[in-house]
Amino acid sequence: MSSTAQIGVTGLAVMGRNLARNFARNGYTVALHNRTNARTRALVEEFGDEGNFVATESAEDFVAALERPRRLVVMVKAGEPTDAVIAEFAPLLEPGDMIIDGGNAHFADTRRREKELRERGIHFVGTGVSGGEEGALNGPSIMPGGSPESYDSLGPMLEKISAKAKNGDPCVTHIGPDGAGHYVKMVHNGIEYADMQLIGEAYQLLRDVAGRSPAEIAEIFRTWNTGRLDSYLIEITAEVLAHTDADTGKPFVDIVLDQAEQKGTGRWTVQIALDLGVPVSGIAEAVFARAVSGHAGLREASQHLAGPSPRAMGEDEAAAFADRVEQALYASKVVSYTQGFHQIAAGSEQYEWNIDLGKVAAIWRGGCIIRAAFLDRITQAYEAQPGLVSLLADKGFAEEIAAAQDDWRTVLTTAVTHGVPTPALAATLAYYDSLRAPRLPAALTQGQRDYFGAHTYHRTDRDGTFHTLWGGDRTEIDA
Amino acid sequence: MSSTAQIGVTGLAVMGRNLARNFARNGYTVALHNRTNARTRALVEEFGDEGNFVATESAEDFVAALERPRRLVVMVKAGEPTDAVIAEFAPLLEPGDMIIDGGNAHFADTRRREKELRERGIHFVGTGVSGGEEGALNGPSIMPGGSPESYDSLGPMLEKISAKAKNGDPCVTHIGPDGAGHYVKMVHNGIEYADMQLIGEAYQLLRDVAGRSPAEIAEIFRTWNTGRLDSYLIEITAEVLAHTDADTGKPFVDIVLDQAEQKGTGRWTVQIALDLGVPVSGIAEAVFARAVSGHAGLREASQHLAGPSPRAMGEDEAAAFADRVEQALYASKVVSYTQGFHQIAAGSEQYEWNIDLGKVAAIWRGGCIIRAAFLDRITQAYEAQPGLVSLLADKGFAEEIAAAQDDWRTVLTTAVTHGVPTPALAATLAYYDSLRAPRLPAALTQGQRDYFGAHTYHRTDRDGTFHTLWGGDRTEIDA
Repeated sequence: MSSTAQIGVTGLAVMGRNLARNFARNGYTVALHNRTNARTRALVEEFGDEGNFVATESAEDFVAALERPRRLVVMVKAGEPTDAVIAEFAPLLEPGDMIIDGGNAHFADTRRREKELRERGIHFVGTGVSGGEEGALNGPSIMPGGSPESYDSLGPMLEKISAKAKNGDPCVTHIGPDGAGHYVKMVHNGIEYADMQLIGEAYQLLRDVAGRSPAEIAEIFRTWNTGRLDSYLIEITAEVLAHTDADTGKPFVDIVLDQAEQKGTGRWTVQIALDLGVPVSGIAEAVFARAVSGHAGLREASQHLAGPSPRAMGEDEAAAFADRVEQALYASKVVSYTQGFHQIAAGSEQYEWNIDLGKVAAIWRGGCIIRAAFLDRITQAYEAQPGLVSLLADKGFAEEIAAAQDDWRTVLTTAVTHGVPTPALAATLAYYDSLRAPRLPAALTQGQRDYFGAHTYHRTDRDGTFHTLWGGDRTEIDA
Repeated sequence: MSSTAQIGVTGLAVMGRNLARNFARNGYTVALHNRTNARTRALVEEFGDEGNFVATESAEDFVAALERPRRLVVMVKAGEPTDAVIAEFAPLLEPGDMIIDGGNAHFADTRRREKELRERGIHFVGTGVSGGEEGALNGPSIMPGGSPESYDSLGPMLEKISAKAKNGDPCVTHIGPDGAGHYVKMVHNGIEYADMQLIGEAYQLLRDVAGRSPAEIAEIFRTWNTGRLDSYLIEITAEVLAHTDADTGKPFVDIVLDQAEQKGTGRWTVQIALDLGVPVSGIAEAVFARAVSGHAGLREASQHLAGPSPRAMGEDEAAAFADRVEQALYASKVVSYTQGFHQIAAGSEQYEWNIDLGKVAAIWRGGCIIRAAFLDRITQAYEAQPGLVSLLADKGFAEEIAAAQDDWRTVLTTAVTHGVPTPALAATLAYYDSLRAPRLPAALTQGQRDYFGAHTYHRTDRDGTFHTLWGGDRTEIDA
């Protein structure tokens, strides 16, 4: 077999299949491989006319079909299956070849794999791919890590198959070494959790407080989608809310069981943030909200708990309230992105990845689930101020929140008064108020810790570490 | 050397030293060992008259000094030092001997060590010890894991040196096999984080909204400490707030740098809760609040952010508000304990520990940092209803919260209106409202997930797993 394929894809479930087709449609010859050959044959039968495919039936043939340096895309389930595929293929590869892992791997696994393969001269390119099935086929947002050399070889191909931002920029960039790509994809998903939870809370407020029907709320979201909230998630929220269940004639959202599921990247995001000391309370509340929803027994046992008896809103008040919800949703969204970008910056520092935050925002503008007009603004903010310590430190965002904050507070107090749970909205506002507080009760916390555990404290007025003899005469000593 | 010591302690920093003295004061002969012998000698010199100590200067002598089966308490830094000590002593031990790890180990490490030592016939007893230095000396709350046989041998000694609840019960029980003791200690610390954060938020509200001075707030806490909030943490909060800095004459809490530190068990609690799918939002917000406080640069850059301009409270209103804060603090405290006990139940199920939640509450009534009158109530709730799914499902707690909830909501809306950050108060109320909600926006989340990722959903009206063809004619198919 002659080595004619510029790229190969092994693992031809829906994501792998669509990525392979995307490469072929863009003029590349694509070698195909799958553990069971039926899938490979099915792809060629169904989509063979879309481009040049080289179907192979063994690992050896697959590797032999690839031009050197080989570019081998692995699209299998994260975890042990990825290790198994690497163990199968790595012995067949030569120095300079590349293994591109396009699954949702944990970045720590990616770091381990990259290190092991680097020692054998093979580039391991852990790559975040966002956009679901449709994105994989028509243009995803792509977040490759790995060595700069691998990006030299691979980048132009990825730029071709990736989504494009409205200004035509490809939604791919070299994120950074080893696990940087999967790390950024993980945080992307964490932000996605927060986005979805905030949208859910906005929906519930419009429903329970403003008394709007799902179809009416779909219209409200469609209007919002023409403004600064313009985004894929707002767009599909309107579609979901406008949909009627054919069986019952009821709104679709009312016949769906309200127990949200999750696959793990949101949880990872929060766990890693805790290790790095980054407060990602909006993402955490989104993950917890899904967990709460799934605890059917706990919810059942809690139906008798007392709630408030709020007065109903008049029509004018409800209309004004809907506008306020837009302000609150926007402000909370800015905060949850602030937290997510803080986490990327902290990971970049911890692992010496040197990630360009502006470029991350830029490649999320198209293809991925959280694509949004608003990412243009984040891109510009980081481009104009490369050392920006926080999105909230950007004048433009700060001014928007200043204009939104009265409504933001009103929406939260209304939710609390009406007993509508808005954990992510509350967490993001509390984060905002925590950052601006001139003094935090952390001073009291330090005092308590010194009292019960002699954990010491610092002073505001001079350097040093101190301990008060709480059990004695309460004098202060240097510690 | 004759084998006369009933127990030995290796690692004689302050916690180990005080535990050794506690055993000796209770009539046990205690063998002592430390990596550097100076510490061993210092202990005997200073406290030798408190009881029978056997000072040893080598691992061999230490082991030889112990009666069989040997009981060897390890009080070293968690992590590698613990493994090093085990590696040093285990080869000197015989089947049936016990190694008791009284440090703050991660329960996963404890599970690993227990398994390794069990295979060699040695009992490894991972043991939570709470109460700080003072507790170690005068009676801590003790949470031993490990085998039931080890507790048969060790339990009576631990019961003697432990704290006692007001009714005289020793604050120790066999928590469960392998890592159960360290797991429960971890969650204890997580609850402690939430308790401290909630107290901090109550303090800040009394300060910024009710306009009270630290000394006045100390008096308010002293009053609270005579009621249902009666607890060690409320007691020491009053002490810390009443304290005046000798240098400046200012309230002590005003000269302490408001950047809270942490050692890791709070973070672990949240990370493990995420793995188990248990929403511990109150604890998470407490951990995040400490993280926020430490980000000096971020806080500095956020001082210009816009806040509200609340009107000042009149004196009568401020007094009434202080009473409301007590209600809110109590309700949030009940919720954070509810979350913590949920996490213990989930861990017990996951690892088949068969933990008795009522006994856990019972042994926290004395000695430990979160000791509180209110734990009597939790003990009774679980004793009366062993299958209780949640503390909130207990009629007594539900009634108290029903009575508190109007004030709880008013306190939170006041905090939001005044711009005082109360993340834990908000998170616990949102959790309460989430549990009682008849419908959650999780249904919309599932609809979105099905739309962008074909993740499928369940219906409320019949069994099965479904997918809507969002990109096609939007019919529903079985998935």
